[in-house]
Amino acid sequence: MRQLNLNLFIYPGGHHEAAWRHPGAEPHRVLDITYYQQLAQRAEAAAFDAVFFADGPSLPGNVRYASRFRLEPFTWLSAIAAATSRIGLIGTASTTYMEPYNLARLFASLDHLSGGRAGWNIVTTGAPQAAANFGLDEHPVHARRYARAHEFVEVVSALWDSWEDDALVVDPASGVFADDTKIHPIDHVGESLRVRGPLNTPRTPQGRPVYVQAGSSPDGRAFAARHAEAVFTAHQTLADAQAFYADLKRRVKDEGRDPDLVKVLPGISPHIGSTEAEARALQRELDELTQPEYSLQQLHRLLGVDLSGHDLDGPVPRDLVPTGGRHDHGSRFEVVLGIIERERPTIRQLLHHLAGARGHWVTAGTPEQIAGRIEQWFLGGAADGFNVMPPYLTGGFDVFADEVVPILRRRGLFRTEYAGSTLREHYGLPRPAGRSS
Amino acid sequence: MRQLNLNLFIYPGGHHEAAWRHPGAEPHRVLDITYYQQLAQRAEAAAFDAVFFADGPSLPGNVRYASRFRLEPFTWLSAIAAATSRIGLIGTASTTYMEPYNLARLFASLDHLSGGRAGWNIVTTGAPQAAANFGLDEHPVHARRYARAHEFVEVVSALWDSWEDDALVVDPASGVFADDTKIHPIDHVGESLRVRGPLNTPRTPQGRPVYVQAGSSPDGRAFAARHAEAVFTAHQTLADAQAFYADLKRRVKDEGRDPDLVKVLPGISPHIGSTEAEARALQRELDELTQPEYSLQQLHRLLGVDLSGHDLDGPVPRDLVPTGGRHDHGSRFEVVLGIIERERPTIRQLLHHLAGARGHWVTAGTPEQIAGRIEQWFLGGAADGFNVMPPYLTGGFDVFADEVVPILRRRGLFRTEYAGSTLREHYGLPRPAGRSS
Repeated sequence: MRQLNLNLFIYPGGHHEAAWRHPGAEPHRVLDITYYQQLAQRAEAAAFDAVFFADGPSLPGNVRYASRFRLEPFTWLSAIAAATSRIGLIGTASTTYMEPYNLARLFASLDHLSGGRAGWNIVTTGAPQAAANFGLDEHPVHARRYARAHEFVEVVSALWDSWEDDALVVDPASGVFADDTKIHPIDHVGESLRVRGPLNTPRTPQGRPVYVQAGSSPDGRAFAARHAEAVFTAHQTLADAQAFYADLKRRVKDEGRDPDLVKVLPGISPHIGSTEAEARALQRELDELTQPEYSLQQLHRLLGVDLSGHDLDGPVPRDLVPTGGRHDHGSRFEVVLGIIERERPTIRQLLHHLAGARGHWVTAGTPEQIAGRIEQWFLGGAADGFNVMPPYLTGGFDVFADEVVPILRRRGLFRTEYAGSTLREHYGLPRPAGRSS
Repeated sequence: MRQLNLNLFIYPGGHHEAAWRHPGAEPHRVLDITYYQQLAQRAEAAAFDAVFFADGPSLPGNVRYASRFRLEPFTWLSAIAAATSRIGLIGTASTTYMEPYNLARLFASLDHLSGGRAGWNIVTTGAPQAAANFGLDEHPVHARRYARAHEFVEVVSALWDSWEDDALVVDPASGVFADDTKIHPIDHVGESLRVRGPLNTPRTPQGRPVYVQAGSSPDGRAFAARHAEAVFTAHQTLADAQAFYADLKRRVKDEGRDPDLVKVLPGISPHIGSTEAEARALQRELDELTQPEYSLQQLHRLLGVDLSGHDLDGPVPRDLVPTGGRHDHGSRFEVVLGIIERERPTIRQLLHHLAGARGHWVTAGTPEQIAGRIEQWFLGGAADGFNVMPPYLTGGFDVFADEVVPILRRRGLFRTEYAGSTLREHYGLPRPAGRSS
């Protein structure tokens, strides 16, 4: 029977923008590696596929009101690897603001030291303020970032394959440490990149990290169809998720790839209570801890419009909202537009809606209800699994692991223990064949 | 009483180029993180100051004959951090082939997750083949690399200071997570770099990682005098080491800095036996496991001259050897010239001399003799401590920790336990003051 894939998406404090203010959160531990190691151990005890960290090379918003600094994923995941043994480790890294040789080394090393648990969330970096941290006058436009990203993936793939699987010999008697005829320069010369290679590390347990992609714009979907093995996505409704799922799987097929080997994993931020009223009260409690100054800035970033100064309890002024089609916005823009069209919210309602998980699916209910919704999306052609985004940590994840996961297991939808030891094995993905001489 | 600082310099297999062929080595574990974690734990049990990894963004030599692939230091040290609690973690990273914003994040994160144990060995990258992995036609010349390196250190220092120490507030009641008036852009615009900042991570336990430098060319010494807090160096004789020590401390003073706050740490590769004859036999055993094809390539890299085809048991042909002064060679070139002038070796003798530790001080003796030589250099104005470079691992380190360290302790030269918990504390260095508003 087809099984869910479940990742724990970790944000310091939790995904709700006011998470750190919740009495169940541990905001004094947001820089404490043991807090994250314990979360990963908890997720591993629940047989989750992976933990996942988002990232970007700039300060992403106003940290006055929210725990929105950045943990550096390579170092953080390496320290988590050392405290776990099975769970996958997915880190975000930018094709726009890193050198492919450096990125290839970091992931190869993470894959080696974790015994084959690395995953790469491939991003082109959406935040325009990153450019000024890298000597650029402006952030490269969407299309140019994606052009470089395609080439970047080609280059790092070739670097990860530059040592054949059996290049490492280690025969003290003959004195051959490695068979250098099985280590190849890549000699890449392209539009954006020139890299000779080879990599300076033997091929890794997984061959390559799992390729993950997370943008749903047309460029993003085309990129995912060509390269991704898992796609992280954000949808507010079953219908939207189904449409995306069908579109993406079709695109994958059009690329000549097997749609079953590309996992579509929407985000879900579940507020869980022993009754539905209790779950809704938790969500309300968090929403009421938000700070409008911050929420308005977040909305400004997503929508490109500053609504501060307007009556928060009045309707979102439709004439100020862009009508879509602005290509460079990325996919989250469309999600926000969808909420406005569908729900006609007040500004405050919209702010609360987005406070939960920045445009991801926020839902509240009993463990049975949450499990039911997950099953509905999973069996209804909307998802192969989920990025679980607890509204606050660690309690918001504990209740998911303790209460929702057992229901999913009883319904035969989720593993009780790991069958394999690498992230590729958890996701049911093949190990990419290496080069041969 | 003044105390030695001791680092364990870790190379896969060991420092001798034939280490991996020695029966006491564990070459099948060179990609196994637990091997390195156990080494670090062993060094921590001996109250060593730090473990240290060299690095470069290219394949550094012919891996056919030696374990000369590269472990990526940030990931590797993060996983080691998770398995230790006190020992310092020094990683090499390049100012030529990394972006300052990325490097600043990686070290800040390593310092956070290790509780203040990070050290940065600042290199400009000597290996010319690195250039082709980064889209460059040629490796920037020595002087240009150093010009960028000075500016690079300014930039990352400013990034590490861009959050004031008390910028993180985390007050759930008032809703203030961080005091944004205490987080400052750096607005750097210079010859080689433009970086706006701020960093996206709070200031770290040590404020900044310990700054380490390892080149002894005139440019390198000037750089060390200005920036370094520890200097890794290579000398063959007490006299050379004394001359370097005096020169460097004088340069530090000329920069207006306190010479006591710059630790000079030569490399020492000790072959240890219960008798001197046994120690020499170990060294000979390793030397005899070398492979001349490889050793000649290494010599070619250090000296710029290919001596293959010559009689290995004939003298080094003096007319082929450059006469020095070639500025772009770096400091190891001078060390090799010194050996040739002083010892007039055969080619094979020279190859064996360099096989031990690539130009670092190779010595053989009983634990008493090794401890005596260390004491002589330490008290004789040649060293503040050492980078211990075991000829093979792990046994070559075990005997140092078990036999030499206790003698150093009996003589009052080395701590029996840690007094502090950060690398700065181990080295007796102050925590750099942060910015204030």
